[in-house]
Amino acid sequence: MALTKARAKAIRALGQKKFRDETGTFVVEGLRLMRDAVASDFEVLEALCTAEIAEDPAAKPVLERLRAKCRQVEQVTPREMEQVAETVSPPGMLAVLRQKHETAAGVLDRRDPAQVLVALDGVADPGNVGSIVRTCDWFGVDGVLLGQNSVDLYNPKVVRATMGGIFHLPVVDDVDLLPVLTQAKSRGYSLCITDPAGETHHDRVTFAGRTIIVFGNEARGVSDQVRAMADTRVAIRRYGAGESLNVAVACGIVLSQLHRLLDA
Amino acid sequence: MALTKARAKAIRALGQKKFRDETGTFVVEGLRLMRDAVASDFEVLEALCTAEIAEDPAAKPVLERLRAKCRQVEQVTPREMEQVAETVSPPGMLAVLRQKHETAAGVLDRRDPAQVLVALDGVADPGNVGSIVRTCDWFGVDGVLLGQNSVDLYNPKVVRATMGGIFHLPVVDDVDLLPVLTQAKSRGYSLCITDPAGETHHDRVTFAGRTIIVFGNEARGVSDQVRAMADTRVAIRRYGAGESLNVAVACGIVLSQLHRLLDA
Repeated sequence: MALTKARAKAIRALGQKKFRDETGTFVVEGLRLMRDAVASDFEVLEALCTAEIAEDPAAKPVLERLRAKCRQVEQVTPREMEQVAETVSPPGMLAVLRQKHETAAGVLDRRDPAQVLVALDGVADPGNVGSIVRTCDWFGVDGVLLGQNSVDLYNPKVVRATMGGIFHLPVVDDVDLLPVLTQAKSRGYSLCITDPAGETHHDRVTFAGRTIIVFGNEARGVSDQVRAMADTRVAIRRYGAGESLNVAVACGIVLSQLHRLLDA
Repeated sequence: MALTKARAKAIRALGQKKFRDETGTFVVEGLRLMRDAVASDFEVLEALCTAEIAEDPAAKPVLERLRAKCRQVEQVTPREMEQVAETVSPPGMLAVLRQKHETAAGVLDRRDPAQVLVALDGVADPGNVGSIVRTCDWFGVDGVLLGQNSVDLYNPKVVRATMGGIFHLPVVDDVDLLPVLTQAKSRGYSLCITDPAGETHHDRVTFAGRTIIVFGNEARGVSDQVRAMADTRVAIRRYGAGESLNVAVACGIVLSQLHRLLDA
């Protein structure tokens, strides 16, 4: 059974937010991400693979789990794959997954007394959002709250840049940040932002109890309303001439301090 | 004097490495970067600006310095700017600069006894290379050695992502890394790499004396030859499920430890 033109078109259309929103689905490409996707509780609706990858021993366990999760796994030609794939060098595997929409309340209400969440307030670049989720995944952050004013979670560049993080930790998308952060504070969360004018240096910050660390827009930082709510304002010390840091890099620096007290 | 088709074409062609190499020039776009460019010792060969930016008070000091540096500053229409600019929303200013090629020996031989350099061994993504230069600029790194196997320094995406760093600290491009690192070691530099299997955790590393910190390829890390030369192998502790960190994020985490000893 060949890939029909209509299906190829429908998959390609998922590169656009409008069609992702309409169908509540998104695309995952490549063996690396698919391995994490099939191990997660995301629902796989349909999948394509090339003959070459079907014969690759490294792909075998992934394909087996994929077939167990999804009845519609079809073999396509590299040319057909190229027509539907987003990445320049077309992958051996591609799947359409159903979006998950965790609720902020569900993530906030978990009983972990030392839960650390990261919130994104207007992070606009897909590579940055993906890289932040990846970094949170590395440092064991318990969940990410992606503000409405940030880029859409299921953007293919975000999904790719998470390097599987999207399948490892809860990322709540489309969060109305101000009411959610207000609610979080009333439930005992401490709010931390990064701020060049902050009074706590990054290598002096300690995290205790339930914490939300907010990272802001690439150009403007966190919004004034969120800044006004912050309990701790962390400044990353500057020693050179640079005016600013990339937001994903800043996130890595702050999160690398998360476990400092624990280990000291 | 209007922008001729031939000149527009020549500027556009600088988006490609071939033409940058042939002419030894590169393009800088936008007021933000131009401010750093005119304050640096890079030579500006020609510049374009729109009428709108020429009337912007924020642009005035930049335009004045630009005119002092370069006789060929031409006013163009937004449409003309759109035809030559790389960025999607065309900038109000654009300039063609002469490439600088610092030598590795020149940077290695400076007499600072605590000099810290960063070397890149096969970093392939322009955004990552740019973001690393930006991070080095923030933390006061004394220079960057960009290995031959990394992306080209004057790629427009690299230039943009440095956020001015390229104009603040020496970045030696096209470095033949193995002989240069060998030379550096013989001159008393200590070599540090990041390595998931490293014996020194990122929050325990101290830097003393002349140091070169090497970051490697996005997928493969540093090459085996460089790994074999390393004096210190730093592991960034992992607390979650993530398999890896973005290389620019890893760079930020390691560099954020640079001044730890100094301040402690």
